[in-house]
Amino acid sequence: MLPITFLSDYGVEDEWVGVCHGVIERIAPGARVIDVTHGIAAHDVMTGALALRNAMPYLPHGVHLAVVDPGVGTARRALALRSTNGALLVGPDNGLLWPAARACGGIDAAVDISDSPLRLEPISNTFHGRDLFAPVAAGLASGKKLEEAGNPIAVSGIVALELPAALVQGGEVVAEVVSVDRFGNLGLHLEPTKLEAAGLSPGQALEVRAGSQSVRAIWGNVFRDAGEGEALVFIDSSGMIAVAVDRGRAADALAAGRGTRLRLSPWRH
Amino acid sequence: MLPITFLSDYGVEDEWVGVCHGVIERIAPGARVIDVTHGIAAHDVMTGALALRNAMPYLPHGVHLAVVDPGVGTARRALALRSTNGALLVGPDNGLLWPAARACGGIDAAVDISDSPLRLEPISNTFHGRDLFAPVAAGLASGKKLEEAGNPIAVSGIVALELPAALVQGGEVVAEVVSVDRFGNLGLHLEPTKLEAAGLSPGQALEVRAGSQSVRAIWGNVFRDAGEGEALVFIDSSGMIAVAVDRGRAADALAAGRGTRLRLSPWRH
Amino acid sequence: MLPITFLSDYGVEDEWVGVCHGVIERIAPGARVIDVTHGIAAHDVMTGALALRNAMPYLPHGVHLAVVDPGVGTARRALALRSTNGALLVGPDNGLLWPAARACGGIDAAVDISDSPLRLEPISNTFHGRDLFAPVAAGLASGKKLEEAGNPIAVSGIVALELPAALVQGGEVVAEVVSVDRFGNLGLHLEPTKLEAAGLSPGQALEVRAGSQSVRAIWGNVFRDAGEGEALVFIDSSGMIAVAVDRGRAADALAAGRGTRLRLSPWRH
Repeated sequence: MLPITFLSDYGVEDEWVGVCHGVIERIAPGARVIDVTHGIAAHDVMTGALALRNAMPYLPHGVHLAVVDPGVGTARRALALRSTNGALLVGPDNGLLWPAARACGGIDAAVDISDSPLRLEPISNTFHGRDLFAPVAAGLASGKKLEEAGNPIAVSGIVALELPAALVQGGEVVAEVVSVDRFGNLGLHLEPTKLEAAGLSPGQALEVRAGSQSVRAIWGNVFRDAGEGEALVFIDSSGMIAVAVDRGRAADALAAGRGTRLRLSPWRH
Repeated sequence: MLPITFLSDYGVEDEWVGVCHGVIERIAPGARVIDVTHGIAAHDVMTGALALRNAMPYLPHGVHLAVVDPGVGTARRALALRSTNGALLVGPDNGLLWPAARACGGIDAAVDISDSPLRLEPISNTFHGRDLFAPVAAGLASGKKLEEAGNPIAVSGIVALELPAALVQGGEVVAEVVSVDRFGNLGLHLEPTKLEAAGLSPGQALEVRAGSQSVRAIWGNVFRDAGEGEALVFIDSSGMIAVAVDRGRAADALAAGRGTRLRLSPWRH
Repeated sequence: MLPITFLSDYGVEDEWVGVCHGVIERIAPGARVIDVTHGIAAHDVMTGALALRNAMPYLPHGVHLAVVDPGVGTARRALALRSTNGALLVGPDNGLLWPAARACGGIDAAVDISDSPLRLEPISNTFHGRDLFAPVAAGLASGKKLEEAGNPIAVSGIVALELPAALVQGGEVVAEVVSVDRFGNLGLHLEPTKLEAAGLSPGQALEVRAGSQSVRAIWGNVFRDAGEGEALVFIDSSGMIAVAVDRGRAADALAAGRGTRLRLSPWRH
């Protein structure tokens, strides 16, 4: 029996997550289920995709169930995938699984599970986590082959999710905020090497701008490298650049959220 | 060892849920515990009762522990029940278990566990989840008989919880909001057949009113049957009628919450 | 394989808790993990320490992982401890583990795990839950000796956390709010015997003051001993004095939060 990891935007206020756990336990009694998170903002496919990709290197070998699914009940396809390194992924065909699958070496095989023989009947229009995705994940965890879960499809037709690329323009780097965590830290889709390509160095004072807001920040290693209330540019736990304010909230200091473009440049004042 | 499912209004901010899990692990080592939800609004017995009833068909055979207990420490009784289909339910005698037990075919046997030999001593006045309900659930999961958990009582004396009935008046249906989920969808205690009894049909445009607020809604199948920001009347995943706004919040559009009466009628404008 | 309990301020919005579960499952497959809570306010070491101490008597024998770590990445030490009664505790050396270890009879042995051979490489500067504390907890759960997790250190050098003492001054007791729960109840670091030492008795009407705010309260046993909306002074489930408002929020009625000093005296009006 493989372990199952589970990520969604279902939240913890309602019974949806518990119901999916119940469905899994009925189909695959004793299967271990690890909740990655259910706190993805409602319908935010990109944040869900990033959280899954960042978690993936630390999750056990097994089945990875992910449901952030604004198109539930429409013609969007439902997928089960096998990655090059043998991970199994189950979720909607809207890009959610894409970055995680790439982090696993790419997609080796894929099936369309929309009419999976493993699904519950009757299937609802609004809760495919319960009726389709959890049953397929439980079936795969208990030993069903990918090919028993649905109809083979071409990998080339799967919806990709491309993250907004950071730009180096002169001595300035422009990158988009792709995540805001509970501490108000702003995660960027920005490799440290791109900062260096723009001539910036660790230890240097930077200006970080978001529209008309601007803060002085130190490129440091730990929150305390900035003074209390000062901003810090650092390599976060996913290996990408992020912006924090020591014992404060960078999201508030820069009035920034998911999708905000930040401009990083040397401090010149 | 039977699995235990666990629903409460304890929230996830405090250590209460974890403490109950600890108590269960000490009494029934290795027992599987599935959290249905702990996000029921504080003291909201009806929402808890509905969440448990809606989850029940998808939960494994076992012990169902539920604690939404505004009367903790008072003379209200504490119960363990066996349903006609063999499910075991544990919780306060305030109606919380009633709809779920009925969904399991009714109550076959009941015991008052207020002075259960399985409870922890000393028992607190304010945390019966830890001191009474979790220990009894763990005892039942590990093989104790219902009769070992408390004193037999008459099923007829158990507190019932009746859901507010929907009314069909002329071409109008009046039904109460019994749940509001994280997407702002309004769940009604209203069977689809009652809408049809009022002469309404799938695909039709309806007016949904809450006091002086009113929206136009389509009776459809999936969120996208309404245009972005438009309202949708649909059969939700529990099989009852609900009101949503595609990529919006019906609760906000109608200024409605738990207990609000909605009036559904054909759109005449 | 020992069970692991896990408390943190990571919240449930992000994937951090799930990632730590994944790390544990990879190192100690099948280990049981009980989440005590992850809802500790960000960086609030004292609330985390109290929650862990209050939970401890109800948790199974095993490894207790706790991470509330505002100094992550700085020179603060990381610890693994064995208590006199055999519990293993893992977390930062900032006082977080101190009250729980004392409740377990004191600290028997301690190691500095900052450079633990069990940690993940490369270790990040900001996510020691994933890279250091969870791996060490998983190693101990799967049978590693404390001495294999780090370098022995003197117990006397470990950071202590002393709770603010309640004062009895004439007929008045002054005590600090050390916790606010989801019902708005105010937990005090105040033993019932201190109220009695000030000449107060169960059943008596008290005045509870917070700055210029003041309420009349009954020293009772259950929430319903106060009338609806009235205040109640009671012994909470941790055995200490707390203040509640029946079907209301004491935190709002007294405009009080963590750190507020409350003054309790006989009602004289």
